[in-house]
Amino acid sequence: MSSATANENCLGWAARDASGVLSPFKFSRRAVGKDDVSIKITHCGICYADVIWTKNKYGDSKYPVVPGHEIAGIVKEIGSNVQRFKVGDHVGVGTFVNSCRDCEYCDDLLEVHCLKRAVLTYNSIDVDGTITKGGYSNSIVVHERQDFYHDVTSPLLCAGITVYTPMMRHKMNQAGKSLGVIGLGGLGHMAVKFGKAFGLNVTVLSTSISKREEALTLLGADKFVISSDQDQMAALAKSLDFIIDTASGDHPFDPYLSLLKTSGVLVLVGAPSEVKFSAASLLRGRITISGSATGGTKEIQEMVNFCAAHGIHPNIEVIPIQYANEALERLIKSDVKYRFVIDIENSLK
Amino acid sequence: MSSATANENCLGWAARDASGVLSPFKFSRRAVGKDDVSIKITHCGICYADVIWTKNKYGDSKYPVVPGHEIAGIVKEIGSNVQRFKVGDHVGVGTFVNSCRDCEYCDDLLEVHCLKRAVLTYNSIDVDGTITKGGYSNSIVVHERQDFYHDVTSPLLCAGITVYTPMMRHKMNQAGKSLGVIGLGGLGHMAVKFGKAFGLNVTVLSTSISKREEALTLLGADKFVISSDQDQMAALAKSLDFIIDTASGDHPFDPYLSLLKTSGVLVLVGAPSEVKFSAASLLRGRITISGSATGGTKEIQEMVNFCAAHGIHPNIEVIPIQYANEALERLIKSDVKYRFVIDIENSLK
Repeated sequence: MSSATANENCLGWAARDASGVLSPFKFSRRAVGKDDVSIKITHCGICYADVIWTKNKYGDSKYPVVPGHEIAGIVKEIGSNVQRFKVGDHVGVGTFVNSCRDCEYCDDLLEVHCLKRAVLTYNSIDVDGTITKGGYSNSIVVHERQDFYHDVTSPLLCAGITVYTPMMRHKMNQAGKSLGVIGLGGLGHMAVKFGKAFGLNVTVLSTSISKREEALTLLGADKFVISSDQDQMAALAKSLDFIIDTASGDHPFDPYLSLLKTSGVLVLVGAPSEVKFSAASLLRGRITISGSATGGTKEIQEMVNFCAAHGIHPNIEVIPIQYANEALERLIKSDVKYRFVIDIENSLK
Repeated sequence: MSSATANENCLGWAARDASGVLSPFKFSRRAVGKDDVSIKITHCGICYADVIWTKNKYGDSKYPVVPGHEIAGIVKEIGSNVQRFKVGDHVGVGTFVNSCRDCEYCDDLLEVHCLKRAVLTYNSIDVDGTITKGGYSNSIVVHERQDFYHDVTSPLLCAGITVYTPMMRHKMNQAGKSLGVIGLGGLGHMAVKFGKAFGLNVTVLSTSISKREEALTLLGADKFVISSDQDQMAALAKSLDFIIDTASGDHPFDPYLSLLKTSGVLVLVGAPSEVKFSAASLLRGRITISGSATGGTKEIQEMVNFCAAHGIHPNIEVIPIQYANEALERLIKSDVKYRFVIDIENSLK
């Protein structure tokens, strides 16, 4: 949509090239259509995807890139057809903002798997041909029937659902089963919390001893294992029912697969550059590796309700937008406990 | 068991070193215990596993290696407790000959996953400390409650069950779904036959145009695609519910994973030296890769019954034992239609 029809100017922070360096950027949000909701953004979580697309790691970045798909805010205007939301509602927007609303996946509220491809919240081509821009900005306009919820802490909308969806799909909610969590960042710490809420025996598998105390005390994990320690790993052989692998750095897979019991499942939710293992690691004990990426609106609403019922909240570091570049560099080094959230409302002016 | 207590000498063919060259070899089978059955072997199928262990591909070969775990024969002697079999019965023996018979997997008749490790039919350490020796020989003694069946064509006991088990486990028996089969050897041709019996739409994915006609006419596949042809592969993108990958040579995985629909499953049953793919290939559409290796006695009996009910038989080339070395070399080159079976009864004397 051209700037001539925009109802306001929007201020965001954008990366202009593969350096990924963010700086202030003004652009236009579309006018509020009859099914649309306009939101004043108050907070936005920082996801590893923001590293990927600001730095063009997948080679498909469409600069300027305004990242951010863990958005929380307040409704400031609604279209004439909108029923679910009213001005003043506290709402969240997640990883996608449009889909065909007509295919089997959209019908099942699994819009993220839309056969015509869901339009992602940023760096994606919207139905009107414009490039979507995300939540490192002070407002957004979205269709009411999209990835959009009442009263939600923003990191749940990517970090939370990315681990919740495969945990439910692979039946990890059976109390007494054992779960390994690889990596203890935004996704990993939520996997530990969900695992404990499901009654699982949770082992954190980490490369860094510095995360041990918090894993056990703050997050409530049952066990902490240094994955480079062969003795500790050998003691865990064939003992886990499930593993959630949240690590986005490159890492070996065979040592982790050896921890799974017969019929065990490793769910991949991180984004290493490649996955490589011995065939024998899967053939032995009919082991499964399955990928997963976020979830549909139905699953997200279920997760939001589950978190409310169980008092589950992400642990966050609130930062001003001016700290975003440093935050992304720290995220690359896994130096965050456990999710950065940008205080858009008070810092982006 | 020492030769002093053996009830007879046994003639087989064994590999003596990693050259894998087979030649005649005399050894002792144990005396028939009260729960044992002694079998005169009439036929033995040749499996890719026989290449692996005669040539020490896994580094764990225990020479001399007498291979063979697709055994058919006739009962010649039974122990005093044996109930299920009588002298003169036509029987088959598959990939394992012992297990603890006491763990959760043995209790579920999934002995191949025995927590104390199933004793494989050859190159495995039996409970008495001896190294098991397989079906390239004129007799075998097995416990009656093991991988052991009435009236079965020998290749079903490895090639057949290796594809049947994961097809049932991953619900590939839903008529109307689509199945891709990578590789058209002993396992692949059985996957096509099971797929058609289940009412699936079956596409053979092959590197060799020479297999086209037989795939479509003899085996009844619905479609044949040359996997190196990018146009043919692109036309098949996101169209398959399942893939069974029977290829034991190294091959790329991303092109095949791109053929799967959302929630699609690739089952790995071959033994390439490594499995390598892009994380995005799994994350997109929550794709699953799962390994599988043979099956338990309950599944095998189900498969034997299913094959009898549906008239499913492996296609075989019957050879004399003197041709075994050449047959193994041809198997490495995928030059077999579709399973070699050694006529032990008439050639091993």
